This record gives sequence, C-alpha cells and structure tokens, in this order.
Amino acid sequence: MTPKVSIIMGSTSDLPVMEKAAALFDEFCIPFEMNALSAHRTPREVEQFATQAEKRGVEVIIAAAGMAAHLPGVIASMTTLPVIGVPINASLDGMDALLAIVQMPPGIPVATVGINASLNAAILAVQILAKTDNELRTKLADYKENLKKKIIQANKELAEVKYKFKV
Amino acid sequence: MTPKVSIIMGSTSDLPVMEKAAALFDEFCIPFEMNALSAHRTPREVEQFATQAEKRGVEVIIAAAGMAAHLPGVIASMTTLPVIGVPINASLDGMDALLAIVQMPPGIPVATVGINASLNAAILAVQILAKTDNELRTKLADYKENLKKKIIQANKELAEVKYKFKV
Amino acid sequence: MTPKVSIIMGSTSDLPVMEKAAALFDEFCIPFEMNALSAHRTPREVEQFATQAEKRGVEVIIAAAGMAAHLPGVIASMTTLPVIGVPINASLDGMDALLAIVQMPPGIPVATVGINASLNAAILAVQILAKTDNELRTKLADYKENLKKKIIQANKELAEVKYKFKV
Amino acid sequence: MTPKVSIIMGSTSDLPVMEKAAALFDEFCIPFEMNALSAHRTPREVEQFATQAEKRGVEVIIAAAGMAAHLPGVIASMTTLPVIGVPINASLDGMDALLAIVQMPPGIPVATVGINASLNAAILAVQILAKTDNELRTKLADYKENLKKKIIQANKELAEVKYKFKV
Amino acid sequence: MTPKVSIIMGSTSDLPVMEKAAALFDEFCIPFEMNALSAHRTPREVEQFATQAEKRGVEVIIAAAGMAAHLPGVIASMTTLPVIGVPINASLDGMDALLAIVQMPPGIPVATVGINASLNAAILAVQILAKTDNELRTKLADYKENLKKKIIQANKELAEVKYKFKV
Amino acid sequence: MTPKVSIIMGSTSDLPVMEKAAALFDEFCIPFEMNALSAHRTPREVEQFATQAEKRGVEVIIAAAGMAAHLPGVIASMTTLPVIGVPINASLDGMDALLAIVQMPPGIPVATVGINASLNAAILAVQILAKTDNELRTKLADYKENLKKKIIQANKELAEVKYKFKV
Amino acid sequence: MTPKVSIIMGSTSDLPVMEKAAALFDEFCIPFEMNALSAHRTPREVEQFATQAEKRGVEVIIAAAGMAAHLPGVIASMTTLPVIGVPINASLDGMDALLAIVQMPPGIPVATVGINASLNAAILAVQILAKTDNELRTKLADYKENLKKKIIQANKELAEVKYKFKV
Amino acid sequence: MTPKVSIIMGSTSDLPVMEKAAALFDEFCIPFEMNALSAHRTPREVEQFATQAEKRGVEVIIAAAGMAAHLPGVIASMTTLPVIGVPINASLDGMDALLAIVQMPPGIPVATVGINASLNAAILAVQILAKTDNELRTKLADYKENLKKKIIQANKELAEVKYKFKV
Repeated sequence: MTPKVSIIMGSTSDLPVMEKAAALFDEFCIPFEMNALSAHRTPREVEQFATQAEKRGVEVIIAAAGMAAHLPGVIASMTTLPVIGVPINASLDGMDALLAIVQMPPGIPVATVGINASLNAAILAVQILAKTDNELRTKLADYKENLKKKIIQANKELAEVKYKFKV
Repeated sequence: MTPKVSIIMGSTSDLPVMEKAAALFDEFCIPFEMNALSAHRTPREVEQFATQAEKRGVEVIIAAAGMAAHLPGVIASMTTLPVIGVPINASLDGMDALLAIVQMPPGIPVATVGINASLNAAILAVQILAKTDNELRTKLADYKENLKKKIIQANKELAEVKYKFKV
Repeated sequence: MTPKVSIIMGSTSDLPVMEKAAALFDEFCIPFEMNALSAHRTPREVEQFATQAEKRGVEVIIAAAGMAAHLPGVIASMTTLPVIGVPINASLDGMDALLAIVQMPPGIPVATVGINASLNAAILAVQILAKTDNELRTKLADYKENLKKKIIQANKELAEVKYKFKV
Repeated sequence: MTPKVSIIMGSTSDLPVMEKAAALFDEFCIPFEMNALSAHRTPREVEQFATQAEKRGVEVIIAAAGMAAHLPGVIASMTTLPVIGVPINASLDGMDALLAIVQMPPGIPVATVGINASLNAAILAVQILAKTDNELRTKLADYKENLKKKIIQANKELAEVKYKFKV
Repeated sequence: MTPKVSIIMGSTSDLPVMEKAAALFDEFCIPFEMNALSAHRTPREVEQFATQAEKRGVEVIIAAAGMAAHLPGVIASMTTLPVIGVPINASLDGMDALLAIVQMPPGIPVATVGINASLNAAILAVQILAKTDNELRTKLADYKENLKKKIIQANKELAEVKYKFKV
Repeated sequence: MTPKVSIIMGSTSDLPVMEKAAALFDEFCIPFEMNALSAHRTPREVEQFATQAEKRGVEVIIAAAGMAAHLPGVIASMTTLPVIGVPINASLDGMDALLAIVQMPPGIPVATVGINASLNAAILAVQILAKTDNELRTKLADYKENLKKKIIQANKELAEVKYKFKV
Repeated sequence: MTPKVSIIMGSTSDLPVMEKAAALFDEFCIPFEMNALSAHRTPREVEQFATQAEKRGVEVIIAAAGMAAHLPGVIASMTTLPVIGVPINASLDGMDALLAIVQMPPGIPVATVGINASLNAAILAVQILAKTDNELRTKLADYKENLKKKIIQANKELAEVKYKFKV
Repeated sequence: MTPKVSIIMGSTSDLPVMEKAAALFDEFCIPFEMNALSAHRTPREVEQFATQAEKRGVEVIIAAAGMAAHLPGVIASMTTLPVIGVPINASLDGMDALLAIVQMPPGIPVATVGINASLNAAILAVQILAKTDNELRTKLADYKENLKKKIIQANKELAEVKYKFKV
C-alpha cells in the first residue's frame, strides 16, 4: 500500500502530539507513513526523503518540529509537494516554533497550523487529498457535521447546569 | 421568563471559567441563558442566534472563546446588541484569544474584558442593564461597597501578621 | 443639552485619534462632551468627574489613554456607568496601554476596544444607548448596512483590476 | 473560464499586498478570481461565497485579513476546500492577525503562511493544484530552479564587492 | 513608633510575595506598616493614604499590584514621596503588571523593580532611607558583603561536585 | 559645587533622550554631573565611578542604557546609593533594555522607569533628594501643580474644538 | 591539569541546568573548571576571573545567568577569549535572560545559545577547541554521527507504533 | 589566499547589514570570503558549502538570515566548524530570526549574536581565530582599547554640553 501522507517528526517525544493525526488518517482510511527525521541531525536523510517523496506516491507531507523548527521549511525547499508544518510547544509556549515555521522566505511556503495542532494538520491534508476523491469529500462533510453534534451535546450538558435565574 | 443576558461559549470546557458570570447574574436576580455555539463548527446556528437575539428580548450578549477566538466578533457582526468578549486562556497565556477578540476592524466593536475575566464580563453586562433599572444601580453600588469590605477584611488579616518592626 | 456620552482623554495629543469618535456622535446626533483629565496629574478632578457623571446625565464614558493607561480603570472604580477604554499607541505598539486597560481586577470591568480604535468605542457607546432608543437602533442597522456597501464598492474596484488570468 | 483559485480580501487596502499572488497566477496561467468580502461587515455574503465555492469549481481559497483576522477561519468553517490564510500587517507588526488565523480550534484548519506573504500563499495554492496537473508540477520545478538562479545572480553581485582581504 | 516605610498591597493574596520585604525591614530594624488598599475598590482610601503618608512620617512607599496594576501609579500621583512599584505575577507571567507600573506618563515616576521582586523593593527603600542614616549605610554594606559570602558558599558546594575532567 | 546627581550614559547618542533629565535639574537648581561610561567598554572606569560616587557626595545615580543594558545593574552592584535605570529604545522597542534593567537578581535593585523616560528618572531623583530638603519638597508640589495646569490648558483647547453635537 | 574551559554560573541553583555541559566535557576528556560568580554580588571577583582567565590557560568561557543576565556580557567586556552565554529560564520563560545576553552593544559579542541550552554551549566550546586538535574534531564527527543514530532508533520505535492504515 | 572566515548571506539585500563584518576583517587583515546561499532555494549548494568548508581551510562561518532563519542552523548541522548566526531584522523587529537561530535543538549549536549585529559576529570570529594567533590577540586588545577611547571622546563632548547646574 502506497502511503498518501507522510508524517515526519524530529523524535519520538513528538509522538504524543502527533498521534491525533495518525488516528484521523485511520478514521478516514488514508494510508500514511510515520518517520523520525531531523533537519539538523540527519540532513542527508531529510534530503533523500524530500526529493523522493513525490516519486514514491506521497501526496502531502506533515512535518512537526519544536524550538528553532527548521524541518518543515527544509523539506519544503526540496519538494513541490504541499508541506504542512506543525509547531511543537517545546519552549516559549511554542512561539519560537511557530515563527520558525510560518515566516518562510518568498518562494518556499509551509502551510502552517496552530501550535501542537496535529489534528488540524491531518484534516488539512485530507482536504487537499479530497480534491480528487469524492468519497473523501463526503467523509469530510460528515466529519464537520459530527463536530456540530459535539456542540449540540455540549448544549445539552449546559442545559442541565442549574442556576436560579438561568432561563 | 425572558433572558436579558445570553452567555455563549464554544464548549463545556469553558464552563469552569464562565461559572462566575452565571453566579453573578443569580446574585443580581437577572434572568440569563447559557448556550454552547461555535463560530467554526456551527456557523449557521451562530447566525440564527445572533440575528434573533434582540427580537427574543436579549439585551446583552457575553461570548467566551479561546485561541483564534472568532465567536464574539462573528456574533457582533450580526447584531446591534452590545457584545462582551471574554478571551479564554487555552494557549499562549490567552494572548491569542485577547488579540483575536479586541482588535476588531472599524465598525464592529466587541467590548473586551480581561483574560478569563468572566466575572467582569457579567458586571459590565449589569452596568449596561442598569441604565434603565434603578434597582440594579443600587445593587451595583452595594456590590462595589462589598468589594471595599473585602479590602477592609484583608487589612484586618494583615494587622494580625506580626513582625518585630511592623508598627 | 445634556451630554449622553463623555469622552475623556489624557491630553490634546490624543485628539487626532479620538476625532473619529466625535465625528460618529455627530453622525448619530448624540450629544457628547469632550474633556482632558489625567489619572496621574489631576486625580481629584478625575474623582469629581467620575462620581458626578451619572448625576449629570452621562450614560456612557469613553476614556482613552496610552502607556501605563490608568485613566479608564480609575474612572471605572468610581462609577457604575459603563466605561469604554481606548488603548492609545504611544509606546510598544500600544501593547502596554492595552494590557493596562483590559486586565482589570475582578469587580471593576472596563469595556476595552482595539488599539487606537476610537471609532469602535463610539459605536459601542451607541449600541449601549440604543437599548432604550428605537431610532438609534434603526440608525445602527443603517450604519452596518453602509459598511456592507463599502465592501461592495471595494468589490467594484477589484473588478477593474486587470490580470490576464483573472476571471 | 472557471476560476480555480479564489482570492478574498477584506478591502482594497489589502490589494498592494495581494497583488503578488495575482501576478503569480498569471505567471502560472491559472484562472483565478479576486473579491472583497468581510467576515464582519458582510457575513451573509461570506457564507454564500464559502458554501458555493466548491460547486462553482473553485479548488483552493486564499483569504487575507488583518487585526482580529476572522475571514480565513470563518470561510474554513463553511467549506471543505483547503483555505490558505494570509495575515496582513495592519497593527502590532501583524502578530494579532497571525495568531487570529493560525490558532484555529480542532477540526477547522487554516493553512497559514507568513505575515503579508501573499506570494507564498499563491505558490502553496499552485502546489495543491499541481497534484493532478503534470504541467503545473513541471512549472513549479522550473520556478524553484529560477529562485536558485537569483541566488547565483546575488553571488555574482557579491563577487564584485571589493575588500582588501576578501578572497 | 512612626513607620518609615509603608507597604501597600491589593489583597492578602499578595502577602506570600511581600513577606520578603517585611522580613528585610525586620533585619534592618526599620519600622514599617503594611496595609491592603485597592486603587479600584477603595479609591478614596487610597487617596487618603497617599495624601497623608508624608505628614504621618512615612518616607518611602512600596506598592505591589498585579494585572492592570494601577495602585503604585495612582499613589504616586498623589504624593511627592518616592513610590516603589512591585509588579505581581497574577497573569501573563507578570508582563501586564510590569508594563502597567513602569510605563508611567511624564511627570509621575514609579521606581519599578522586577516581577515579584519584593526583596529588591525593600532594599531600594533602605538605600533611600540610608541617605541620612550612617548606621543604615553600614548595614547595607554588610548586607552586600553577605551576598558575596553566599557566592563563596556556592563555590564551595560546586567544588564538591565531582567530574572526571573537572580540575 | 558638589554634584548631587550623576547622570551616566553609554554614549553621546543617548544625549537627546537624557537632555530632559538635565533640564529638570536646572529647573530645580540641583547640581549634577553628566558622563559617558560603558559597562562593556570601560568596565574599570565604571567600577571607579561606582565605588567613589558616594564619597564624592553624589546622592543619586541615573544610568541610561539600551539593548542588553547592563550599566545600571553593574553600577548598582558596586554602590549602596540608589541607582535609577532608564531603558533606552535602541532595538526591539526598548523591551530588551527594560528587561535587562528591571529584572535584577535578589539583593541588587535598580529603580527602573519607563522606556526613554529620562524626565521621570530626574523627578524620581528629586523625590529622593527632597527627603531632607523642604525647599525641594515645595518645588515638587509646585511642579505637580503645573502638570495639572497643562491639563487645564488642554481642556481649554478641547473646548474650542467644534462639533455639532458637542455640548 | 589546566582547565581549557571555565564554566561560570551565578549560583548553585543553576547547576541542574549546567550539569549537561560538565558531562559533555567528561565525555570529550576536556579539562574544565566550574565556579560560581555573580556580576552583581561579586563584581571584583568577576573582574579578577575575567582578566586572569587567558593567562591561566583557559581558552573558552561559558557563562550562565538568568533574569537581567549580565554575567556573560560583563565577562566578555574584560577578556578577549570567546564567551559563550547560556540564558537560564528563571522568569518570563527565559526571554529576559536571552535578550540581556544576546543584545550586546557593538564591540563586545557574546556567543549566545538557546534558553537553558548548556549542552549546546559545551558543544560550541568543543568546536572552538577542535580548531587546533585533530582528535577532538574526530570525536565531534563521531558525536554528530551518534545523534543521527538516535534518530534511527526513534524511527525503529515509530515503526512499532501500529495503526490500521499506517504503511 | 585561503579564506579563514566565510560570510554567508541569503541575498544581496543583507549586504548593508553585513558590510560591517567585512570591514572588520579588512581592519584585522583576515582573509575572508562572502557568498550568497539560501537554505531554502539552494539547499544542495548549502550542503556542498557546509561539508567542504573545513577542507578548504575555512575556520569560522558567519551565516546571516532573516524571518524563519534556517541558514545558520542548516549549515551547523553539516559541519563541525563553529557557526556564528546573525539574525537579520526583516520582519517582527527580528524576533522571528533571533528565535529561529538561537533555539537550536540539543547537539547542534549556533553561536548567536544580536539582531543585525554583524560587527559582533566578526569580532567573535576574530576571538576564535585569535586562539592560535598572538598577533590577533594583541590587535583585539588594541581594538577594545579603542572602544574605550570612543567613550573618552564621548565624555569630552558631554563636557561641552552646558547647563546652569551642570558641575
């Protein structure tokens, strides 16, 4: 099975954050791979990965990194596939990672999501894949519908909270 | 009983913060309602709420949201009722929510209170309602008087703290 | 004519920012006053103003201040009228003023608008006044309608921007 | 001609920033449209746009906004198309817009690029479109090759800068 | 015994931070007083305190406050005694309190020390009192000498930390 | 004439900011001196200055510095005189200088004023000197009175600003 | 044995952070010393240390400090040896220390590493020492090779994480 | 002539900032080279440069970059030479570049200097080179001595500034 999405992270310590992305791909039945690569420790492996990903059939790359987070940008510089960057909060509330990922120079974009927002990275990947996949589009619509249901559930719980003057 | 204030929050996870607002309305005998709505998950429900609130008799809206907090601004764009925004600290110490609520474009104000400051949102709502309600104005004056008493109580406690050179 | 809104600023150097508020009150035919008061230089005058405003018929106070902006909070501590705070950008991009206004302690809210956002302060004041004034509510609805027209006008201008592949 | 990309901005004042995106689509021969819409001033038009875009054949949306930038997130909440957000620097060096766009709640991602980075937004859009368009992929590869040439040109210019001890 | 220093704090919750100041005055045998006053809850009491302090013999005032910390500035506006401000970390890592205290307008200085730095506030007070008190000056010199001894002690502890290549 | 206040700055480029302090001392007839010293370029001269200042009759030191502003803290570490620190805005809006001056370790306070706030530094120095100088205290009271007059003047100017609905 | 690297810290409370540097020097068999010195409490000892270090054979200095971190800069001002600065996170997430170390004035650089990054400080010191030491250069290359192995190990762990659609 | 220092920048637009480094090497008679390389546009050329620099005789690398500044870190990941990073202020006052350079992961340090501080980068390079070059050490001592003279000159200029009460 060819992975459509490749999740790259700097170390296994990022796994607790990135698990939500993996779980979403399972939910959407999208084949994916998951690897550890470091822009600073394994630059050649990063290059090999980035330059080969498209040929291997990967369609979207999700790269997570903390601190001076170079991984998403370095990969983006070596491929024309869309690269989604996830800033990991490893210091400074994640602001260093956010700026080091989103403020890319002209010509080399990284599609940045929120700090630790691996779930949103995965959904964005699905939205990109859905362009040519009607079934995925339907599932996405259902997924959004389910989000709504959680709000409806929240409303029910709020209805049970009692205050004297709550109508 | 028609609710005069409507408290809107994005999910039940905001309830521990917003409880202080509800408690204050109980204390001031002001009928209120409390609902979960999400600018991003239930946009149509938000629209329906915002466009109907005034007709239903609501006079002030309190909207709480965290992160890229759009809920107060989106509601404010669809009503001429005063909307009070409460930035919830869900990330970045609440600075993202504060800026996403207070920095509204010209024409669509949100009356923003401090981060997690649901109590102040409620008092502000009472101050607005008190404009046409002498009784509320009196209660507000009493409330402020009570705040003063807490300081007096604090002073008493400080008086009991002993130091050799404390006069 | 009794002023319904009182605009307070620390010095005439804030006037270029606050002019938009004054112009809006003219547009909405709302009697207002405009005074310079300083929380730090004229504390007694501030106290006198704040404690007398309600009796004089003022219904909403707009207070603008920069840097360690205490004026809105100090006024709010001495009245039960709603106080709208406008952070003026005099240093640090206005972040010092924003935090010094919005982060009020429990019990004393200031309805804060964006940095230099005097127009939004004025609109918020009108929204509060409109609670008991049908005519104002209609004007507000018209005002919002006009904002929409500016977008329509913007769209027309964009339509005239020519690009080879612009549809 | 059906537009493949839709560029949305809050007002014509954002045009000088967004022109680079338009120019890139011309360079890549990608039909696009350009409209002014405001999350706060024309919420219904935004809803209509967002819910109809996919049916009209739009494949990617680029939304630019400043300050409490809600436009990209609001559109993203109403479509399953990928939405690329461009934070416009209108205040606070663009940090308010960046946070208001990137810190979206779980479930509703916005693919955020750097502050004022309209060119990168356009390239990201092309990368997404290129998934099913070999010609575009080739053009993208050429584009990246050209970026490299600019560096080579820069090197030539540096070679002409003379210092006594410059080798 | 007339207090030479007056420590003012907003509530007893600030006591754990301010205890270090009290302990230092005990150590230096300087009579002091300690009171709770709130710029926002007890404005009149603050005014009475600030305008009477000098006449009562107080020579230096230490005022601690968190969030939109107005207390030190408000007191400074009503006295010509030196006012030392201690920003309390109650939110945003204390940055809101720091800016709300230190960024005073021209004419009304507050001598600001670090976030939660009550000890430094007390030492600064002693340095001011020492101007006319030779004994205090000697004690201050001894105090600084003791600080040095702690470093010497730290050095001894470090000497006992063993590493193979530590010389 | 023995200088009572010593103004220290890192270079003549700080003079335009520090002139207001000098002018104030002229206004208050307080003998002062003004020198350039650099914590980093002339560390020995700084030490000599700091250790001799008290013996020479200096009673308060004002030290101004920008960026990684060490000068005030380094001087404070070598004297028991009160040291007033003025953060100069040379980069990052002056935030680097503010934090490098105010966040001193326990034991070595610097009385910090606002960014570029040389006038407030001078007034604070006068407040400290006034402790033993009745005449200065009177002048200070007059000075504060004059600040009030500027507000009164501002009010007059505001009174002349005409709006149709300005009362 | 002459120490080649001198590690200086303000107090033993910095030891848990600085231990990683010591361990690295053990691993690389580089003689080092470790002392507590305070720019503010023991200025003369700092001067003596800084002016004597080179003569004693020290080749690189690592100085760690928190808050208004002056130690690295003060040492750098008194020696021509390279000084590596480690900002310690003691407040404000370490941002105050970072700015107080890195933003040195022209002429006096401090080689700054990340917040709490004592390991990187040590590696940087080794890189500087390796200039004239082939053996060290080989060890450094091995060390970097080992970093890569950790990524390979991480990859193996990730391979064992099972998801239904993980390829 | 073999260059001892290699200055790398992302584009010729960084030249005005980096000129001070070049001028300093001329002043110290240190052969250097100057090239444009981009971590994102010419990743392979960066790799070739970084892996060959040591063999070519380069002893220190200075890398300047703005925004999401990856260049210094990427080079550092491919060489064991010391890499000095210069954050260029291209957006956000240079804070994004500072964090993207200094917050490197464990194992790969970059010796970071202040924002736009190319001169300090060059002096730091000279300090590293001086380890094995007595002549350079003497020149460095002279250079520092000259910095002191500028302060003495500044003092003379300040002596000529006249105030009535300036001693």
